[in-house]
Amino acid sequence: MPFVHIEWLEGRTLEQKRELAKRITDAVSEVAGSPQQNVHVFFTDMKREDYGFGGELTLDRQQK
Amino acid sequence: MPFVHIEWLEGRTLEQKRELAKRITDAVSEVAGSPQQNVHVFFTDMKREDYGFGGELTLDRQQK
Amino acid sequence: MPFVHIEWLEGRTLEQKRELAKRITDAVSEVAGSPQQNVHVFFTDMKREDYGFGGELTLDRQQK
Amino acid sequence: MPFVHIEWLEGRTLEQKRELAKRITDAVSEVAGSPQQNVHVFFTDMKREDYGFGGELTLDRQQK
Amino acid sequence: MPFVHIEWLEGRTLEQKRELAKRITDAVSEVAGSPQQNVHVFFTDMKREDYGFGGELTLDRQQK
Amino acid sequence: MPFVHIEWLEGRTLEQKRELAKRITDAVSEVAGSPQQNVHVFFTDMKREDYGFGGELTLDRQQK
Repeated sequence: MPFVHIEWLEGRTLEQKRELAKRITDAVSEVAGSPQQNVHVFFTDMKREDYGFGGELTLDRQQK
Repeated sequence: MPFVHIEWLEGRTLEQKRELAKRITDAVSEVAGSPQQNVHVFFTDMKREDYGFGGELTLDRQQK
Repeated sequence: MPFVHIEWLEGRTLEQKRELAKRITDAVSEVAGSPQQNVHVFFTDMKREDYGFGGELTLDRQQK
Repeated sequence: MPFVHIEWLEGRTLEQKRELAKRITDAVSEVAGSPQQNVHVFFTDMKREDYGFGGELTLDRQQK
Repeated sequence: MPFVHIEWLEGRTLEQKRELAKRITDAVSEVAGSPQQNVHVFFTDMKREDYGFGGELTLDRQQK
Repeated sequence: MPFVHIEWLEGRTLEQKRELAKRITDAVSEVAGSPQQNVHVFFTDMKREDYGFGGELTLDRQQK
């Protein structure tokens, strides 16, 4: 505890996940006062057909 | 904002996702009074081995 | 199945929740071909201090 | 209703999912007093690069 | 890891939460082979106006 | 997009939420390359009776 779920479009690299997991753990640990070992980070890579806004899927926005 | 997550069994078409994203965005925008651009829609396609009810996975229900 | 989770800022009325639950159930049922009885809808009312974007909580944005 | 989401590392077998869905449904039904048919169970299999704690991805922990 | 989120209607007692947390942890630990200390359980108590199915909020179903 | 959900025990101050929202937005924006305006942050304050690990609710752990 705490638990941090990140939803973003697929395509980020392993290195980006490593760096973001580290930076988020540091931030949560420092601000919330939780030991780093207790900070859990989760990534969900979303396909462009599985996320949209304004009534349009990202897949279709990007093909314009 | 608002954010709408839809979990359903895998197998729906891209066209169904397009149509549902549009209809949900319209409904949320009209009822909640949010601009369409602020309505975010997310789809999770679940495998039949990853969802069940009544103590049984959908995979097994459908093989009966 | 399907399951629809809606996260929005607190303050919407019971009537808005009734109407949106109905419209989302109709849309999902018609587009996904699921019986209405199988469509589950969940609302999460978020406090303005519990959601933000662009590095700012909604609470602070609205006090400007 | 109730709805139980389980997030765990990928690699568990179909048989483990069958058994856990059954045991969780029994537990929820008996403790919460809900009919078994109303208990829904969801599995999310997480890749080792998509979950970590203590600022490190599981992928990297296990390669040490 | 694993992480188990339970969404149910509000009104269950603290004792029910204690019992269900214990039984789910036992089940997950035995089936998934995870040490009990690594099994995290989360409860979300839903208001009857915040959950519904078949196009109707639970609040309205129960007032019939 | 991206979307960051943080679940932690209730009791953190508004100031902590402000600071963490800012730091997470900076981290996500810099690592993922997303404009700050597109980074959404959500907080869930959990009661001590609604979260536990090792088969025990936090409420009971802290009363020992």
